[in-house]
Amino acid sequence: MNIIDIISKTKKSEILSSSEIEWLVGKFTAGEIDDCQMSAWLMAVCLRGLTESETLALTLAMRDSGDILDLSCIERVTADKHSTGGVGDKTTLVIAPVVASCGVAMPKMSGRGLGHTGGTIDKLESIEGYRTELQFEEFINIVQKTGFSVISQSGKLCPADKKIYALRNMTGTVDSTPLICSSIMSKKLATNADCLLLDVKCGSGAFMKTRQSAEKLARLMERVGESAGKKCRAVVTDMDTPLGNNIGNALEVKEAIEVLQGKKRDRLYSLCMELSADILELAGAGSRNECFEMAERAISSGKALETFAKTVELQGGNSAVCYDTSLLPQARYSYRVRASHDVKIISADSEQLGMTSLILGAGRLMKDDDIDYTAGIVMECQRGDNVSQGETLMTLYSSRCSDFSETAVRAIRALTLCPI
Amino acid sequence: MNIIDIISKTKKSEILSSSEIEWLVGKFTAGEIDDCQMSAWLMAVCLRGLTESETLALTLAMRDSGDILDLSCIERVTADKHSTGGVGDKTTLVIAPVVASCGVAMPKMSGRGLGHTGGTIDKLESIEGYRTELQFEEFINIVQKTGFSVISQSGKLCPADKKIYALRNMTGTVDSTPLICSSIMSKKLATNADCLLLDVKCGSGAFMKTRQSAEKLARLMERVGESAGKKCRAVVTDMDTPLGNNIGNALEVKEAIEVLQGKKRDRLYSLCMELSADILELAGAGSRNECFEMAERAISSGKALETFAKTVELQGGNSAVCYDTSLLPQARYSYRVRASHDVKIISADSEQLGMTSLILGAGRLMKDDDIDYTAGIVMECQRGDNVSQGETLMTLYSSRCSDFSETAVRAIRALTLCPI
Repeated sequence: MNIIDIISKTKKSEILSSSEIEWLVGKFTAGEIDDCQMSAWLMAVCLRGLTESETLALTLAMRDSGDILDLSCIERVTADKHSTGGVGDKTTLVIAPVVASCGVAMPKMSGRGLGHTGGTIDKLESIEGYRTELQFEEFINIVQKTGFSVISQSGKLCPADKKIYALRNMTGTVDSTPLICSSIMSKKLATNADCLLLDVKCGSGAFMKTRQSAEKLARLMERVGESAGKKCRAVVTDMDTPLGNNIGNALEVKEAIEVLQGKKRDRLYSLCMELSADILELAGAGSRNECFEMAERAISSGKALETFAKTVELQGGNSAVCYDTSLLPQARYSYRVRASHDVKIISADSEQLGMTSLILGAGRLMKDDDIDYTAGIVMECQRGDNVSQGETLMTLYSSRCSDFSETAVRAIRALTLCPI
Repeated sequence: MNIIDIISKTKKSEILSSSEIEWLVGKFTAGEIDDCQMSAWLMAVCLRGLTESETLALTLAMRDSGDILDLSCIERVTADKHSTGGVGDKTTLVIAPVVASCGVAMPKMSGRGLGHTGGTIDKLESIEGYRTELQFEEFINIVQKTGFSVISQSGKLCPADKKIYALRNMTGTVDSTPLICSSIMSKKLATNADCLLLDVKCGSGAFMKTRQSAEKLARLMERVGESAGKKCRAVVTDMDTPLGNNIGNALEVKEAIEVLQGKKRDRLYSLCMELSADILELAGAGSRNECFEMAERAISSGKALETFAKTVELQGGNSAVCYDTSLLPQARYSYRVRASHDVKIISADSEQLGMTSLILGAGRLMKDDDIDYTAGIVMECQRGDNVSQGETLMTLYSSRCSDFSETAVRAIRALTLCPI
């Protein structure tokens, strides 16, 4: 086998064998194939595509490039969830304790945010003391005790994905369904839970802008997961408008806790219940209806909140925040963006709000940028609301900068308003 | 401007502006764009193509990446010729002295062979003492005296092409008409002769396997050359079967000298006359018929041979070879491949014969391989000939290896024979 032949085959839409794909991933991970050759292959994949069997082979080869977690010591059924990334998406913070308190274990590895989308690990790190880098034994120990733990992705999982992803970012080869699928699924398969729920976000704040492309990715990931022996479900959910009211790390933890406290019964709450029920059903906990009711009871009984607090404590965090969210870090500066006329909110663009939040300090443009955990946006209105002149549309928060003139303009531009 | 946007545009078949292309080539040559990013862009070009105006902009940016020769000190009209490479193609050795002795100057920079195709510089270096690395002043001096000089491509010409070509070789992105065009034309435009004749080879031994693809490249190069202000003609010529009888460096010099001596009036001679007439006509030396007769007279009068001998002498070579080809280096070993039955020669596959010649020592698999100047093949028969049992089909030559068992089998397989 040689790399030029492999590149040429994909370029000519010829199908690679599993052994050719294994060879490619193995040699690349070992540093025996040059980055420029891999980049050419990745571009050929973007433009020519891969078949489903090629995508499966690529996913498995990437999974096998590093450690595969041994979760056999966990007696309960294990489940994992992945979101393709969005703005204000704090569902993991709700779903993991809900599912765990219903008897299904969630040993979860998550990532950090980049660009306008946030990352669960950054959100959890806004809780004072919360440690996201745990040894495997401690991680499993927490899962055994509370039913879930969320830690930072291990460096030993899927080194092939890390190398490939870095190249894709540099070479304009991110937007390819088979490449996105293999990147997500290789990590999920290496984490090795029994059941996988894949939440494919669709809309302005998501990577997949159209319903059609999101459905295509969802179905592909489902089939790849099932071929790899997992129970797998992929759902497509809306990300045209941010999820919930809060965007930004500590602000999102606050909102998630409010859901766990049973104080919020909005779109965010409903989505968390739907996704929790999906996971519980996949794990064989009962019928869809039974699972949905189980999830709701986990909230109303306070069990999910208690489970969350226990995990926070075991991971070194100040669990008092679960009962008093004012203990979360608070921004030094804030600014109310008010309506200049009486208006109706037609839409709120996720991507633009995500970028505004990033500029306020909540996100990273580059991988090593520092984060202001207190920064972000609280939406005081939602799509469809009428807002009177002078009322607050949203509040901006930051501890870095007290001058909101630029960010306020950006924030207001993210809204489509109709005078009433 | 940024590289990700440029890659994405080409990927989406959006048209790049000239300034974007200049930026890309400039930054890449300066080492400010990573090889893996350029490789991704090159693959996108292979699969999405470039428009003619983009190809022109790319060619000009590559030309401008290094020195452009100043030929203004040469009083005569200057001409240059390029062949896309073939097997047994020694036309430059005939055409340059013919054209020069008809009053048109040919200051020519040539390359070395790689793979199954030969290079003019290797051929000339098989003449004892011939120096191919001259300073610009000496090069021009020889052109002023004899009308032509052939030296090795200067390292200062088109550094962008050198970097891009190395990447294309590594990344399976060689076969793209706009990339081939810009590579050839940037070098020709940097050499800066007034008139350009482009000989696009077509067939098994050539890069362009079909007439259609060869015509497409020919027309594109012609239009790019004309847009850049040159008199330009591109012709498509056959390379299904080797050009002439001899393949291999010293063997090809011998055959070229035989043509210059007026001893050969075959397909090779005719092609050399046609191409010489094309160049002379482009240079304004007269009508097509007049130019053709001028070229023939250059041979029959002995003037072309004399011009060749003079240049060989000025470049340090032993010009006595022009009158006695037995002074050229001779192979230590030879082997006659004979017909095992009475046969008719249906075809002789250029690519296979080129590879056989390479294995005998005449060529390079890798850029830095050493060459055996004496090695090669002399075809004793041509397509269409009848050969009796026991008669010689071809003779193999080598100074490295006396065992011809493997190469003889390869050589015979290159022929399609029909029993008679």
